[in-house]
Amino acid sequence: MRYYEDLDVGETQEFGEYHVTKAEIIEFAERYDPQSFHTDEEAAEDSAFGELVASGWHTAAMCMRMLVDGPIQDRASMGARGVDELRWKQPVRPGDTLSIRTEILDKRVSESDPERGYVDSLLEGVNQDGDVVISWIGLGMIARRNPGED
Amino acid sequence: MRYYEDLDVGETQEFGEYHVTKAEIIEFAERYDPQSFHTDEEAAEDSAFGELVASGWHTAAMCMRMLVDGPIQDRASMGARGVDELRWKQPVRPGDTLSIRTEILDKRVSESDPERGYVDSLLEGVNQDGDVVISWIGLGMIARRNPGED
Repeated sequence: MRYYEDLDVGETQEFGEYHVTKAEIIEFAERYDPQSFHTDEEAAEDSAFGELVASGWHTAAMCMRMLVDGPIQDRASMGARGVDELRWKQPVRPGDTLSIRTEILDKRVSESDPERGYVDSLLEGVNQDGDVVISWIGLGMIARRNPGED
Repeated sequence: MRYYEDLDVGETQEFGEYHVTKAEIIEFAERYDPQSFHTDEEAAEDSAFGELVASGWHTAAMCMRMLVDGPIQDRASMGARGVDELRWKQPVRPGDTLSIRTEILDKRVSESDPERGYVDSLLEGVNQDGDVVISWIGLGMIARRNPGED
């Protein structure tokens, strides 16, 4: 298990492989983002996108799945306060394969809770062509290994 | 249909009603955020949350659904570039009922595309007790009614 002390600013990771299907794009969008360029292939052809594209929130959710199956699994994670600068940079389409790049930007111990560390990380979701399709800065919390040893 | 010209900075709206069920919390989390405090009621009791709570991305998706069923429906929306300052402020639990408050913070015409306006809006997701559970600043794009009339 990796704790606050085990993470270094500048550390990068690449991981994950998520195959995006038309069925899943439509299923997510029908429930959470029923705009026609996410739910209807024909209507999408007449939209600004010109084709069916994934909801931006669906893209975020797919990246979260790769985080949970990846680095979160072996970290003493205490969840996230939120994210900054979430950007949808390129469309995500049926048949795309996504993966993740992360970089730790900053870390510091909580002033109010010495058992808790804050770790800010840049996340980029990348498609099979190397295009960044989504990015955000995650504001994570992680347990300290040795809170008393300051 | 409301265009860029029809939206005023300071304008507020309240809308939506989303009933959060245990089944939906678990279903979303099993697919996109399979951490045990989102997927397993017993394990959640031993977690920092002390009970089953919705994935933060699920909460965002539920708010998106209320946006699509609400103000997006009658707006000449061109999508969103992203969101800033997404924050998960309080847990969302089975049985909660969520609604939305929005306020338009800023608007300006795109410098590169005179047919497009940028509208930044604060969104707050609120539960039945009036607690803000999630908030973000949406960076929306909306068509102009009369692009030539500057």
